Amino acid sequence: MSSSSTSALEIEIFQYIDAHQSDFIENLKEWVAVESDSVQPDLRKEVVRMMALAADRLAALGATVNLVNLGSHQAMPVNFRFIIEGMEEAGSLGLENLLEKENQCFFSDVDYFVISDNLWLSNKKPALTYGSRGNACFFVEVECGSKDLHSGTFGGIIHEPLMDLIALLDSLVDPTGHIQIPGIYDSIAALREEERKLYKSIEFDLDEHKNNSGVKKFIFGTKEEILLHLWRYPSLSIHGIEGAFHEPGIKTVIPAKVIGKFSIRQVPHMDLLVVKQQVVEHLKAVFSKRNSPNKLKVSMPLGSKPWLADVNDLSYKAARRAIKTVFGEDPDFIRDGSTIPVARMFQTIRQKSVMMLPIGAAEDGEHSQNEKISKHSYIKGTKMFAAFFLEISKLHQHLHETSHTETNN
Amino acid sequence: MSSSSTSALEIEIFQYIDAHQSDFIENLKEWVAVESDSVQPDLRKEVVRMMALAADRLAALGATVNLVNLGSHQAMPVNFRFIIEGMEEAGSLGLENLLEKENQCFFSDVDYFVISDNLWLSNKKPALTYGSRGNACFFVEVECGSKDLHSGTFGGIIHEPLMDLIALLDSLVDPTGHIQIPGIYDSIAALREEERKLYKSIEFDLDEHKNNSGVKKFIFGTKEEILLHLWRYPSLSIHGIEGAFHEPGIKTVIPAKVIGKFSIRQVPHMDLLVVKQQVVEHLKAVFSKRNSPNKLKVSMPLGSKPWLADVNDLSYKAARRAIKTVFGEDPDFIRDGSTIPVARMFQTIRQKSVMMLPIGAAEDGEHSQNEKISKHSYIKGTKMFAAFFLEISKLHQHLHETSHTETNN
Repeated sequence: MSSSSTSALEIEIFQYIDAHQSDFIENLKEWVAVESDSVQPDLRKEVVRMMALAADRLAALGATVNLVNLGSHQAMPVNFRFIIEGMEEAGSLGLENLLEKENQCFFSDVDYFVISDNLWLSNKKPALTYGSRGNACFFVEVECGSKDLHSGTFGGIIHEPLMDLIALLDSLVDPTGHIQIPGIYDSIAALREEERKLYKSIEFDLDEHKNNSGVKKFIFGTKEEILLHLWRYPSLSIHGIEGAFHEPGIKTVIPAKVIGKFSIRQVPHMDLLVVKQQVVEHLKAVFSKRNSPNKLKVSMPLGSKPWLADVNDLSYKAARRAIKTVFGEDPDFIRDGSTIPVARMFQTIRQKSVMMLPIGAAEDGEHSQNEKISKHSYIKGTKMFAAFFLEISKLHQHLHETSHTETNN
Repeated sequence: MSSSSTSALEIEIFQYIDAHQSDFIENLKEWVAVESDSVQPDLRKEVVRMMALAADRLAALGATVNLVNLGSHQAMPVNFRFIIEGMEEAGSLGLENLLEKENQCFFSDVDYFVISDNLWLSNKKPALTYGSRGNACFFVEVECGSKDLHSGTFGGIIHEPLMDLIALLDSLVDPTGHIQIPGIYDSIAALREEERKLYKSIEFDLDEHKNNSGVKKFIFGTKEEILLHLWRYPSLSIHGIEGAFHEPGIKTVIPAKVIGKFSIRQVPHMDLLVVKQQVVEHLKAVFSKRNSPNKLKVSMPLGSKPWLADVNDLSYKAARRAIKTVFGEDPDFIRDGSTIPVARMFQTIRQKSVMMLPIGAAEDGEHSQNEKISKHSYIKGTKMFAAFFLEISKLHQHLHETSHTETNN
């Protein structure tokens, strides 16, 4: 904040933010109390309620704009368009169609896309994100019949679907995390030496990350190996099984139909349809060796592509300056092992710069139990966004003046 | 019913049962409407309600005894003691202690134990059951930490507990149902040639059994192989996983703690403690090969021993006659692949004859969805119990007279 580059306007905004910290926290409290979990069908009504809440709040801001009304009435440094979508964890079905439909309407005058839906790499140092992995989700269904059976009456004489499924799931990854599906690594972009060097300079505390995860030991021992395997190599995770007994206690059931759920985080230049074919062929091959009379079905209900941005884009420059102003240091330029499908969609559909600007610490546990945000990240992050809007306004204006000058030449 | 051995008393009872069929069905309707599922903790209050209902009904019967009051007031051919226990599917914790405690009190004058908690081998031919498999239930817990993780943030760099668990579960059984745990078949009673012949004479419709199960194909092709593998060889079934994602849809979670549930149906002369040790050692050996830093815990929360009775016992003779009278044919003498721990407990604690007298068809789907009983089985079964009580009274009296005569000699 004591940076010499801080403008009088920025100081005024930052003082406003500091003075209203408790209002901001109350607002956030009200929002996070809404159980808007799109994955649980029962809670989807809460996603809709969250939407209504957000809409009301934005409408209210549009009417009074107290937060950014800094003397010159309704004068914002940039114009905003908000897109709020609540089903990201459930695959955001229909979002891509909407973006395509609104490409020449709602989005026609949008120059920069900013998404704030991920975390920094460390607990303290801010980061800018320029890439994310894709995600291909798979369902493997094995069925022996229409009704569950009792293990006393049929145990030992039938091919149990859950045993078939477990063998299929066990064939996917070796104990070192290496995916066993033939061909899956074939089209991954080769790692260039200068790219490998880039990883070396990133500030990343392995022990901190390990503490955040709660696990005792990672598969890899060095920072570079860890980041490469999170960002630019694919991974496969098994999430669970639908249809089997899942409650506490014991139930001596042979489930008749079980569905294994797993997903592959893919990276450039893996192709979704090729990945799907490789998975299907591999599972069919493993299944056929078991001589099981059960029915096997493999499907890919969701598939999101990876995303990579150009870090020389103007928005990255503006964000870098804003971070320097508010946090007093340069951000790390990082990728994200997770998937933000909308980043890739905006890039593909609008052909405009897309940036991810996180304001959460690594330890905040996104998508997990006790997901949180620290007061520090929340308030400083709010200031950072204010500074970013001022910066991008300046840079954008400069770019257009330059462009105008060039045209005049 | 037209059998020449049917007595006037039996005819009177059977007519009463026929005339009151709809009352019996109404009674049963009221009982099965109670969701007394001991496995689901939420429904345990219903188990208690079921107990109260049964107690009320028995008290009411004790007061008026309309069902068997056939002219000679309160005169039953035998005395009854009922034991009603609702937690069998959840392991009947504490039952064995109660039986031991009541051995010289409540049970002191009980000569014959009859349990009716299983099914016939076919849909039409009645059966008497003289043995059941034991059941050893296992929990295999693998844990990486205290909180679930996101597959984008940690996928590819951690040893996922669910992958460890799946590998462990996959190591238990081969695709032909053969258990892979070293030593597990060592102490199984050898199959004698005369025993093998016994299996040949049993009426068992393989296709009917397959239709009841809903599966396309069994692991074995002959009646003998099927019955041997259901009754006198152990089997291992996997029931499910606690702690993993189990709902419809997708959740890109890496579960931090998962518990696999499986059980082994054991047969004479497998020893529960030896089985437990073999399972633990096998799982530890498989786990150690994975070099996983996760925590492994194996436990056997429930263990029930197998049971075998002597088919020459008086109660088996009485039941055979009663079945012949009511159903017009001799029963099959069968074993049961399921576990009725109380049969073994009565046998061990009381050292008295224990018999299982089922009145349900194979297709009734015990313990499964849409469990049912046909009106035919229910009404004929009720008659069969009446005839059985008369027969056992006669045979018991005869035995004591003979014994008295012998003493006098």
